[in-house]
Amino acid sequence: MNIFEAENYLNKILKVETFNDFCHNGIQIEGTHEVKKIAIGVSFNEEFLNEAIKQNCQMMLVHHGIFGKNFFKLTGFQKKRIEKVIKNDMTLMGYHLPLDSHEEYGNNISILKKLNLLNPVPFNFGFIGNYEEKISFEEFKNNLKKVFENQELKIYKNNDFVKKVCIISGDSANTIELLENKVDTFISGETKEYSKAYAQELKINFINAGHYSTETFGVKNLAKLLEEKFNVKTVFIDIYNEI
Amino acid sequence: MNIFEAENYLNKILKVETFNDFCHNGIQIEGTHEVKKIAIGVSFNEEFLNEAIKQNCQMMLVHHGIFGKNFFKLTGFQKKRIEKVIKNDMTLMGYHLPLDSHEEYGNNISILKKLNLLNPVPFNFGFIGNYEEKISFEEFKNNLKKVFENQELKIYKNNDFVKKVCIISGDSANTIELLENKVDTFISGETKEYSKAYAQELKINFINAGHYSTETFGVKNLAKLLEEKFNVKTVFIDIYNEI
Amino acid sequence: MNIFEAENYLNKILKVETFNDFCHNGIQIEGTHEVKKIAIGVSFNEEFLNEAIKQNCQMMLVHHGIFGKNFFKLTGFQKKRIEKVIKNDMTLMGYHLPLDSHEEYGNNISILKKLNLLNPVPFNFGFIGNYEEKISFEEFKNNLKKVFENQELKIYKNNDFVKKVCIISGDSANTIELLENKVDTFISGETKEYSKAYAQELKINFINAGHYSTETFGVKNLAKLLEEKFNVKTVFIDIYNEI
Amino acid sequence: MNIFEAENYLNKILKVETFNDFCHNGIQIEGTHEVKKIAIGVSFNEEFLNEAIKQNCQMMLVHHGIFGKNFFKLTGFQKKRIEKVIKNDMTLMGYHLPLDSHEEYGNNISILKKLNLLNPVPFNFGFIGNYEEKISFEEFKNNLKKVFENQELKIYKNNDFVKKVCIISGDSANTIELLENKVDTFISGETKEYSKAYAQELKINFINAGHYSTETFGVKNLAKLLEEKFNVKTVFIDIYNEI
Amino acid sequence: MNIFEAENYLNKILKVETFNDFCHNGIQIEGTHEVKKIAIGVSFNEEFLNEAIKQNCQMMLVHHGIFGKNFFKLTGFQKKRIEKVIKNDMTLMGYHLPLDSHEEYGNNISILKKLNLLNPVPFNFGFIGNYEEKISFEEFKNNLKKVFENQELKIYKNNDFVKKVCIISGDSANTIELLENKVDTFISGETKEYSKAYAQELKINFINAGHYSTETFGVKNLAKLLEEKFNVKTVFIDIYNEI
Amino acid sequence: MNIFEAENYLNKILKVETFNDFCHNGIQIEGTHEVKKIAIGVSFNEEFLNEAIKQNCQMMLVHHGIFGKNFFKLTGFQKKRIEKVIKNDMTLMGYHLPLDSHEEYGNNISILKKLNLLNPVPFNFGFIGNYEEKISFEEFKNNLKKVFENQELKIYKNNDFVKKVCIISGDSANTIELLENKVDTFISGETKEYSKAYAQELKINFINAGHYSTETFGVKNLAKLLEEKFNVKTVFIDIYNEI
Repeated sequence: MNIFEAENYLNKILKVETFNDFCHNGIQIEGTHEVKKIAIGVSFNEEFLNEAIKQNCQMMLVHHGIFGKNFFKLTGFQKKRIEKVIKNDMTLMGYHLPLDSHEEYGNNISILKKLNLLNPVPFNFGFIGNYEEKISFEEFKNNLKKVFENQELKIYKNNDFVKKVCIISGDSANTIELLENKVDTFISGETKEYSKAYAQELKINFINAGHYSTETFGVKNLAKLLEEKFNVKTVFIDIYNEI
Repeated sequence: MNIFEAENYLNKILKVETFNDFCHNGIQIEGTHEVKKIAIGVSFNEEFLNEAIKQNCQMMLVHHGIFGKNFFKLTGFQKKRIEKVIKNDMTLMGYHLPLDSHEEYGNNISILKKLNLLNPVPFNFGFIGNYEEKISFEEFKNNLKKVFENQELKIYKNNDFVKKVCIISGDSANTIELLENKVDTFISGETKEYSKAYAQELKINFINAGHYSTETFGVKNLAKLLEEKFNVKTVFIDIYNEI
Repeated sequence: MNIFEAENYLNKILKVETFNDFCHNGIQIEGTHEVKKIAIGVSFNEEFLNEAIKQNCQMMLVHHGIFGKNFFKLTGFQKKRIEKVIKNDMTLMGYHLPLDSHEEYGNNISILKKLNLLNPVPFNFGFIGNYEEKISFEEFKNNLKKVFENQELKIYKNNDFVKKVCIISGDSANTIELLENKVDTFISGETKEYSKAYAQELKINFINAGHYSTETFGVKNLAKLLEEKFNVKTVFIDIYNEI
Repeated sequence: MNIFEAENYLNKILKVETFNDFCHNGIQIEGTHEVKKIAIGVSFNEEFLNEAIKQNCQMMLVHHGIFGKNFFKLTGFQKKRIEKVIKNDMTLMGYHLPLDSHEEYGNNISILKKLNLLNPVPFNFGFIGNYEEKISFEEFKNNLKKVFENQELKIYKNNDFVKKVCIISGDSANTIELLENKVDTFISGETKEYSKAYAQELKINFINAGHYSTETFGVKNLAKLLEEKFNVKTVFIDIYNEI
Repeated sequence: MNIFEAENYLNKILKVETFNDFCHNGIQIEGTHEVKKIAIGVSFNEEFLNEAIKQNCQMMLVHHGIFGKNFFKLTGFQKKRIEKVIKNDMTLMGYHLPLDSHEEYGNNISILKKLNLLNPVPFNFGFIGNYEEKISFEEFKNNLKKVFENQELKIYKNNDFVKKVCIISGDSANTIELLENKVDTFISGETKEYSKAYAQELKINFINAGHYSTETFGVKNLAKLLEEKFNVKTVFIDIYNEI
Repeated sequence: MNIFEAENYLNKILKVETFNDFCHNGIQIEGTHEVKKIAIGVSFNEEFLNEAIKQNCQMMLVHHGIFGKNFFKLTGFQKKRIEKVIKNDMTLMGYHLPLDSHEEYGNNISILKKLNLLNPVPFNFGFIGNYEEKISFEEFKNNLKKVFENQELKIYKNNDFVKKVCIISGDSANTIELLENKVDTFISGETKEYSKAYAQELKINFINAGHYSTETFGVKNLAKLLEEKFNVKTVFIDIYNEI
């Protein structure tokens, strides 16, 4: 697989031009142009990088690459990460917001489908969906446990039933304020100090299913796309993180 | 106690004019001007408000009052909160960043002193302090448990000892990036998805002692100041929050 | 009438989403949800509010509600206004720029029609219209006196005739600079120190028909819309203001 | 008098470097460098300019010169004004905010002194002063009439007495909101639609003494300074304006 | 020719409303409204102005008129220029970016055509075009010398052939960074200190054909348009400038 | 020499904290911490880098390092440069504006001293100095030729003598506009299309002594400082550039 062809292919699917993000979406470090095996992951960090090298990958494709707009400066732990990438002639490719919000391959639509929710409507960087008939909160919790098997769920229950659900992966806890009278249940990836009180007063069930755990779906979908299109191998490297 | 005299007194001590904050520091809702009993707390929310009313307080003094700069609009759950405050003729007073960073009464300096750290130097909205001789991480952990009795501590240990510590209460996890080669240990009030990897690669012990739990100290100090100066009663209302 | 249905109805007609205004357009204070009688007015102030209460209104609909984007702070005379609204369980709804510029129900199009001007073209927040044949300034002044019966008109005459007229209600005096060679007559709602000299040098008749007086038309039109759609009673409360 | 020496002299006295104004303070159009007679006025406009030429002035010194920051463009009535200045080889010098707020020669301090108010403290672009003992509103009104002889005063009386007064010349009506509990009387140079209601609810006497009329004092003071320093003639050209 | 009709005519052709430029495009100084002869040039300066007057022109049409957004201030050498324009009752008209980038009359498309390049695609304020077959760099250089007869070309050769060329007139040297892997040759109008190294490492032939020399084409095209439409005389005044 | 000690030492001398620059001043790429030989140069580029490697340097100290504030992205020719630095374990240190304007070691003060100008006063990023008595332009030109031996000087002569001179290295040509009536001679490092006309109308001698050639002095001064302080070897690598 040629890394520039892969970048063009994903950029078009994810419509990266239309996003005002916190990082460059696409190739963040250019390595060898021809790639046989790709390490797929949520976050670029040293542990992930070491494992990718061990598994003979020439490229990393992640949701959290390198963030921020600053004057060029390569020092400290960041320089160590980048040095290792360059000395191993690897490519780092990152897709952030376009991967949260994509209507077919994104993190949130994937969770929505796994929970059998219907009629997805985009909201912020996620989606709102609903069940045809309301179900009990217990039944919903069981569904959640199947989708997020290894994740300890943080739950603030404020309704006995679930019908309309908003899902926004990652650090989305503050969005609950915009959901008043819109949904009965909100799945986020982080919890803030005010989340409990807001959820209670807005009468919305609040579930934190983990920043990491809500954001494994999108990159796995991209892996499949690249496998099919370019006949390349991929491996998901799970540096699990309870946050 | 007259609320305007109290506001003037605290504004001067906390030097509120020098801060660029996310809320108005001082009186956020003006109620009855004469106050006999004050409800002290971390966060203004309905549960706290109900308890303050029950305990016959005429004023609330909190760290997290009402945030944000928007066009005037009183609707939904926020309107309900404010309606209850107004109908009970209560005053709401809030102090945020000035209370985190104050060098005598602030949240962070208080934690620093309770941990017997020395030589406090302001850093961001908190402080860096040190022990004269390095101590073992186990000993430090025991100290922490005494300061934060009821709080489950989230710990990423990356050094066997502790000598130089940075303390920043609340949502400060991203500040770790600025601490490379500056400290061996960082106490924050929240954890981010990247905290574990950053702590490991920066070789810094990371402790999340809770957003709520790290921010109870400042308001309690203000309570004492008002009691002494104005001969008013105060009661700390503990709407505990594990976040 | 349900206040949220009324807000949705007016928001759509007035296309509030398309404006970058100085206040929130729509519900500014949420009161009782079911409303039988609405106080219609130009400006929300204590005198207007007292009269609305006296006349048993549950809602106020005004052109000048509460303006400005600031950190939340309810003190002083503003707190007194809002306290009275809340204790009387009333709703305050405000529509500002969308009501000046609306092409059917707005303040300016209404004045244009009453003056029998033709071919309205939007300009700034108002309209430019014309007569088929030019008329004498005296005839135009008589027309104006019929439209603004009780208002003392401030007039700087610089042409003997009137053919093409720009109308912008309220504080629009500075817009005259953009009208050079475009119109012979300008109707504004305020006068500035430079208005006399500008009008003279630009050779434009300048008429200040009053900020208040030029802005009574739009809210009256909304009153009719709500009466017809929701079968609710309305009363125009005229707290006249010579400015 | 050399125009550059005069500019240096006034710039220093008025500390123009410290202001963030809406125009260039100092020489706005450079004409003949040696000047024998100066036309002093509130506002630069064609009528003022014609009179200055008629009276054989080589320079105009005004409070309202040419405002605004735009791409260079000399067209229409502005070009006609400037053409006339250039063809008559005249200099235009303007001082705006520095002349409102100066503590010795400014518009507001001059009014304060003429009203025999004491203890001037800077506030916004004006001053707050007070009487030793409160006087009746009627007595104060008589004082005002002597200072602003030919000006029709717009008065909203909300207190029977006057003790503490804020004076801000020109278009300052919106500043009343900042004066709650600070003064009993406010002298402005313009009236807004909301001024009556604000004054009433804030319980402040509001007096509009005219934009033009409140701003004649500063330029006259500058005239005296130039006469004394440079032995130049000056004439105040009164293009009176009731606004 | 009436200057306002000419301005309307050119504004429409050049679509000036769609540009975010560094000057006002159109009439910058309004002079006599009827014009018989126009001085055409690259830059408005005293030498050009003197020649235009000598040749009895009533209007100047240039690429570089008066730039910048500042408070109004006519002093020094700029005042001298403008005074001379006004005293000779001349009009100054300027068109900047719209004239660089126009797809039929612009500076860059004109150069592209004269070099017989094909398939122009807009890039930045210029165009990219190509030859059907690559030609030798020597042949290309000969073509260039015919287009820019009197101009000393600055050349950094990094390829032996030329096939795909980007042309951006004027001060465009920094744009080379955006051309990596897009073209083999870049024609600019200025050279920066880094141009040589960038061209070498990007493997792009860099040619500086002069700021002045690359920007004579557009204004000449406008001259023809005005001659044909309005039957007016034009003369190109060549104040040559080796930069 | 330790690179962090060197950075601290230079940061203090050059007061880098006080500058709002276009790049990070200090270590831009962290390489081996202990350095024996430093390559000194004006600009970081591949040719310079190759020579630095060839001469066994472990660090490069330049005036033009890596500029710009963008999302992290290492691709194309920039990635090739950085890869080579990292693979050779080298450090890149850059000082830009602080080195132009330093009052003892800067580029401009150095030129001023070599020309025997007196009484240096900071102006923009350079200095204004003067001769006690004016000298002929020819004598001054001879002085210049000694300071800039190998540089072809671009000269626009507009005065027969030289007394007061402004020196601003690099791309400073537009600053001439601020020098009206302040100096008779201006030394810059670049020429713009308008420089000739401006110089002529402002009556200022304009000399472009080359961007590269005016900026070799500062880095050589830093080299001496590091040699003396840290006993390290330095070599000036002259990748001469006529611009």
